Amino acid sequence: MKRRAFLRHSAVLAAVPLLRPAPAAGPAPGPRRAPLRVNGARLNGWLASFDAIGRTPTGINRVAYSEADLAGRAFTLDLFRRAGLAPRIDAAGNIFGRLEGSDRARRPILIGSHVDSVTDGGNFDGPVGSFAAIEVARSLREQGVRLRHPVDVVVWSNEEGGTIGSKSAIGEITAADLDKVARSGKTIREGIGLVGGNVARLGDAVLKQGDIACYMELHIEQGGLLEKAGLRIGVVQGIVGLRWFEVTVTGFANHAGATPMDQRQDAMLAAAKFAVAVNEAVTSVPGRQVATVGRMNVTPNTTNVIPGQVMLTVDLRDLDPAKIAHFTERFERLGREIGAATGTTFAFKRTVESEPASADPQVMGWIEASAASLGLTRQRMPSGAGHDAQELARIAPMGMIFVPSVGGISHSPREFTKPEDVAHGADVLLNAVIAADRR
Amino acid sequence: MKRRAFLRHSAVLAAVPLLRPAPAAGPAPGPRRAPLRVNGARLNGWLASFDAIGRTPTGINRVAYSEADLAGRAFTLDLFRRAGLAPRIDAAGNIFGRLEGSDRARRPILIGSHVDSVTDGGNFDGPVGSFAAIEVARSLREQGVRLRHPVDVVVWSNEEGGTIGSKSAIGEITAADLDKVARSGKTIREGIGLVGGNVARLGDAVLKQGDIACYMELHIEQGGLLEKAGLRIGVVQGIVGLRWFEVTVTGFANHAGATPMDQRQDAMLAAAKFAVAVNEAVTSVPGRQVATVGRMNVTPNTTNVIPGQVMLTVDLRDLDPAKIAHFTERFERLGREIGAATGTTFAFKRTVESEPASADPQVMGWIEASAASLGLTRQRMPSGAGHDAQELARIAPMGMIFVPSVGGISHSPREFTKPEDVAHGADVLLNAVIAADRR
Repeated sequence: MKRRAFLRHSAVLAAVPLLRPAPAAGPAPGPRRAPLRVNGARLNGWLASFDAIGRTPTGINRVAYSEADLAGRAFTLDLFRRAGLAPRIDAAGNIFGRLEGSDRARRPILIGSHVDSVTDGGNFDGPVGSFAAIEVARSLREQGVRLRHPVDVVVWSNEEGGTIGSKSAIGEITAADLDKVARSGKTIREGIGLVGGNVARLGDAVLKQGDIACYMELHIEQGGLLEKAGLRIGVVQGIVGLRWFEVTVTGFANHAGATPMDQRQDAMLAAAKFAVAVNEAVTSVPGRQVATVGRMNVTPNTTNVIPGQVMLTVDLRDLDPAKIAHFTERFERLGREIGAATGTTFAFKRTVESEPASADPQVMGWIEASAASLGLTRQRMPSGAGHDAQELARIAPMGMIFVPSVGGISHSPREFTKPEDVAHGADVLLNAVIAADRR
Repeated sequence: MKRRAFLRHSAVLAAVPLLRPAPAAGPAPGPRRAPLRVNGARLNGWLASFDAIGRTPTGINRVAYSEADLAGRAFTLDLFRRAGLAPRIDAAGNIFGRLEGSDRARRPILIGSHVDSVTDGGNFDGPVGSFAAIEVARSLREQGVRLRHPVDVVVWSNEEGGTIGSKSAIGEITAADLDKVARSGKTIREGIGLVGGNVARLGDAVLKQGDIACYMELHIEQGGLLEKAGLRIGVVQGIVGLRWFEVTVTGFANHAGATPMDQRQDAMLAAAKFAVAVNEAVTSVPGRQVATVGRMNVTPNTTNVIPGQVMLTVDLRDLDPAKIAHFTERFERLGREIGAATGTTFAFKRTVESEPASADPQVMGWIEASAASLGLTRQRMPSGAGHDAQELARIAPMGMIFVPSVGGISHSPREFTKPEDVAHGADVLLNAVIAADRR
């Protein structure tokens, strides 16, 4: 349907045979041309086939460096080849394929995502953007649209294990990172070798400031904002910064029957008051900041003993580093106050930290204009989840396109994005690439 | 010192050699006689020796039916023999020893406690009352005080595993109880055999209403009430009833970064609000009722995932069954309200239940008068912890004497009761037995 729609609206009417190199001179890009469209049915077909790889009774398991990840990468490499993109694997294990541009002086427009999954995840987080990028390049070729810039399609390795491939690509991977054990049980060092990379030559993989024209990534939203608002497209303003805390609340374990209420130093009560207070604090001011108490480990965790110690975690995120600093201070103060009121002590430890990554206003503009030209409803929004785009933002203008995730569900076997939304997202990416080429 | 003080004040001045049978005719009990005293130094010496049995780096481990429990019982049997109490083991594994009375028509006054411990417990919960009961009988004999009633000293088996010995003694043990696996890893059925009982003849061990004159037990307080009030003796009004709940809070697991605060169904937040609300509810009305959230198990318990489910426990206790019913209803209502406010559901399951057991007013009077005659400060108070006395209350007038536990700590290696308080408690028990004999 999408393909036919394109044929009706596009000036390029020649039925270009699949995989035949596009003619050197395509139609000159003009401001008034109707938007192009990808082959949405084909793209969704790839996703449907991909669903069989790493599928287990508890969800998709294509964790980086596993057998299923290798099978997923083999499937992906085949898509690159069938799109005429002659894939290569860089030293970090990332897959790259190029659609040449007409102007050799232009730096490449980079588009892509990842295909690895979390444990017990879904089929859309990553593959949607990866396959859409391949489809965009293939559509450009098939539809005889020759851009001035080369278009590089990338599938980053091990995104879910800490954006390892994209971090390597900007030269930010450390020796300590390489020695970490990934969810597959292999070290990242071993894993990179296994997927065809070469840790001894990681420097070869590094992209520096100015090496690429821009980076764009299509991804599922992973929240319910678009669905709730009834919108088709999210224009990502940036990827939120993140700070993780481990908070240890220490009270005194004692008999749950014999200890009067006013003589307790109940670490559970203090931890519960803190979890409630953290929630009240982040929701007390306008904005899209989020804070989550996700883990709680209680000692001794026995029905008839007042808990003596509770370890809990806080996951705090926002686009604005000042807000992260503000809430850090506020949480620590809440801990002191609740500790004083309950006879307990609060110890805070920061375990993980990442800086916010802003999208480039010009790239956001291309994405917005692309969605508008396609008649797709849209809004600007932050990404609460981390993405490879946050790494690329450090060396190039970055933009991201979100499509709705049904029920806002992700990292779950129930993760699902409707085929029409997948196609819409790819269409927006295609026309945003064309817009980027025109600047 | 205590022994010398007695010699100074008592009418019985003859130095009775240890273990020699007391003369048949002791001094007639009279209302104005100075109180007797036990040999506190001897009693505390037994406790000090006992501390070596089952002592591990993490505390006393004399869990029922373990090697250490058997060693503890052997030590105790030796104390019975040295007190001239000719111990016997009943079918339930309880140790009994009798000091004969002068009136064969009188039913026995029963006194005692237990010597088994919890995992990683202390040396005072149980042994204080058990050894004091032996010491009371031995002091009566040594001091030539012949009572009309026989005094039966009992050391109940497996108190910490659910008052198994005393429950058997009142005929309330079930086949299902016997098949339960105790902390030692053995079934209760196996354990009873191991300690010298005979499960095939449990009926022989049963005491019926009217079989004993009364039951009195000395125990450490296991709370900080006496210490905080600066008092020596607690006159127990009863053992609180107990109700345990398992509360399952179900929300929806989702991405901690991508899910806006107003679109969450956070089971952790709901559970935390509930834990705070339970605490507020029980402390909002006067009284000594207690409620404790002791366990919390979070799913998936991951820093960056909004918890989808939390299981928590509530331990609710009070002397008044109407109050237990009131708070049960109130907790369930709080669950419904918090569930509605947070998009979660609360499911309540009652897992354990025990009725309150009241002390007998006359027995309380004897204990109070005994403490008064010894010049010991005292107050009436409930027992928040469960004891063998709660079982005996079903078939006989019951009373308990509490002595302070330093810092209110028990079920802990840091459990400690001062030697002077152990001696005071035994003195109160001794004179309460004499008072009981006079009625």
